[in-house]
Amino acid sequence: MINFSINKTLFLQALNATKRAIASKNAIPILSTVKIEVNAHDITLTGSNGQISIENTIPVSDENAGLLITSPGAVLLEANFFINIISSLPDLTLEFREIDHHQVVLTSGKSEITLKGKDVEQYPRLQEIATDNPLVLETKLLKSIISETAFAASLQESRPILTGVHITLNNKVFKAVATDSHRMSQRQVTLDNAASDFDVVIPSKSLREFAGVFTDDIETVEVFFSASQMLFRSEHISFYTRLLEGNYPDTDRLLVKTFETEVIFNTADLRSAMERAHLISNATQNGTVKLEIVDNSVSAHVNSPEVGKVNEELDTVSQSGSDLTISFNPTYLIEALKALKSEEVLIRFISPVRPFTLTPTDNKEDFVQLITPVRTN
Amino acid sequence: MINFSINKTLFLQALNATKRAIASKNAIPILSTVKIEVNAHDITLTGSNGQISIENTIPVSDENAGLLITSPGAVLLEANFFINIISSLPDLTLEFREIDHHQVVLTSGKSEITLKGKDVEQYPRLQEIATDNPLVLETKLLKSIISETAFAASLQESRPILTGVHITLNNKVFKAVATDSHRMSQRQVTLDNAASDFDVVIPSKSLREFAGVFTDDIETVEVFFSASQMLFRSEHISFYTRLLEGNYPDTDRLLVKTFETEVIFNTADLRSAMERAHLISNATQNGTVKLEIVDNSVSAHVNSPEVGKVNEELDTVSQSGSDLTISFNPTYLIEALKALKSEEVLIRFISPVRPFTLTPTDNKEDFVQLITPVRTN
Repeated sequence: MINFSINKTLFLQALNATKRAIASKNAIPILSTVKIEVNAHDITLTGSNGQISIENTIPVSDENAGLLITSPGAVLLEANFFINIISSLPDLTLEFREIDHHQVVLTSGKSEITLKGKDVEQYPRLQEIATDNPLVLETKLLKSIISETAFAASLQESRPILTGVHITLNNKVFKAVATDSHRMSQRQVTLDNAASDFDVVIPSKSLREFAGVFTDDIETVEVFFSASQMLFRSEHISFYTRLLEGNYPDTDRLLVKTFETEVIFNTADLRSAMERAHLISNATQNGTVKLEIVDNSVSAHVNSPEVGKVNEELDTVSQSGSDLTISFNPTYLIEALKALKSEEVLIRFISPVRPFTLTPTDNKEDFVQLITPVRTN
Repeated sequence: MINFSINKTLFLQALNATKRAIASKNAIPILSTVKIEVNAHDITLTGSNGQISIENTIPVSDENAGLLITSPGAVLLEANFFINIISSLPDLTLEFREIDHHQVVLTSGKSEITLKGKDVEQYPRLQEIATDNPLVLETKLLKSIISETAFAASLQESRPILTGVHITLNNKVFKAVATDSHRMSQRQVTLDNAASDFDVVIPSKSLREFAGVFTDDIETVEVFFSASQMLFRSEHISFYTRLLEGNYPDTDRLLVKTFETEVIFNTADLRSAMERAHLISNATQNGTVKLEIVDNSVSAHVNSPEVGKVNEELDTVSQSGSDLTISFNPTYLIEALKALKSEEVLIRFISPVRPFTLTPTDNKEDFVQLITPVRTN
């Protein structure tokens, strides 16, 4: 039966990272537990909500862990409750000792807490993924690609495939695309290192957990695939996510090369103007903002009969092409601008009824966003 | 019709302070608005939820306000919406101009926002309070008395009078008492300055807003009473609250002078032990912690059959009197200890079925708390 002692702070960090995969209310009650497996040389904590799973390993060799393993074993403990108990312990170290009937005795300072655990045999088995021929990616780059695309995926289950991010590796070009059919975001990057080509759709919800699981001190992650799962792995953390089944729509056909009107804005200025517009447009169902590009000026207009209206002249960095009046949901433009890290943004229009394109002014090829206008009378 | 310009930041501060009295959803829809009254030399913002009302005055003489009044008047604007709009404005200053039909045009930088307002005649009239013979109190002292007592008031409407804090002034002794019938907190202070005696019950909910309304730079407040209302007033802020009707129970009879057992604890240590106990006791309905005072040791015990148990030896500073075993809800002790600012706490017991008393070790008279034990078998 398990017996080990460990530094409280480090144990808590690992538990909290694992908890990201654990839902406090799950249709499968056993998934609200954390699995604690103690081996000869390390402890592995596992959490899963059925969609994503996280395994976190603390090795005896990690000096900060102060981990001393006296006896191995495995047990399940109610995750939230266990984490609250651990963080309340009075001393810097704790002793974890299993007694009969899967009970666990935690000793720290003068405090002794006995918790009921569950038989580890009740825990579902995670699907295995072959871990040969990894694709190695910089954690920072992957986080950035996720934050540039995942927000554009659909939140609605009416077309489940659109709740995912379409990620492909094709002849060293790593490409991520998400769309909810009103807007689209596509980010690509050419990798130096070779790996087998692939084509998967990852739930955007899973990807949004990625940044929380892999902290900035983890420089690279290895990526592995099976038919139904993906695994991101660092030295001590394995992050599994299910893949979405089905064919992702062809988004390449949406990207055009010729435009009628081009305007460059300061990203922050345009965003704050759109946030004002949104406050008023939001009062009307499907409220839109109207952008008027005339001669040498651009202005934004909102009219929500119940609450009021906005008229604002927008500063531009440069402007060229035909005059144009186009209406759209300002939320899409706000979110697109949030995803842009560049100081300036190039917006290119074709017509009032065709999607318009946003790109950073310093990279018009690798990061492209589209927003579909709303037809008004 | 109103016309003024003002510094955005200062206007926003005053609006946010006023908003503390405004509920976004109120049974009386007009109370979701803020009243803006512009006079020759100042602007007064008023918010109310029917229970509390706040008036905030910005004078032309306040240089930080950059207030320039061109034309006076009054209008009502949807508070939350108006505050969001003001905080989104692009420039440091804004111009506020009323046009026809209670509409307001806000101009800031190149942005022009038109909002629908309402006729000020629709706003309820706040009851007047005679403002002669004020009781002047230090803001800091009053905030401290509120935080030491208001938490002990009842949250349940079954006995409405217990949702209030009983505040009396009797021959220069200012006393605040709150109880929910399970625990009680009494704080008193002897004032230097004279004022008429009084006896009121103020809703604890109103008092909890006090600290947010009167910031730390406001040194003193004047206090005024009418039969049904109380007014706290500083130079620019008036805070009104309704009083509770009815007789407050006699709490003086609960305070006894002789005890059987006395223990002094370090406040922080005892609190963290009780927080651990609470994690486990909380898993059982009406879960309690049992304190065992035997010979020279004090220990805490919790047993929640579903989740586990806690056994903990408690460090004490000193201990005297008879042995005793007593059970109580640890939440009450945790909240009582939170309200204590002293490093050490004196706890005095009479018997397992009589309330026990908490006082700071450095002041056993002016701040007394009682907790009623739970009878167990």
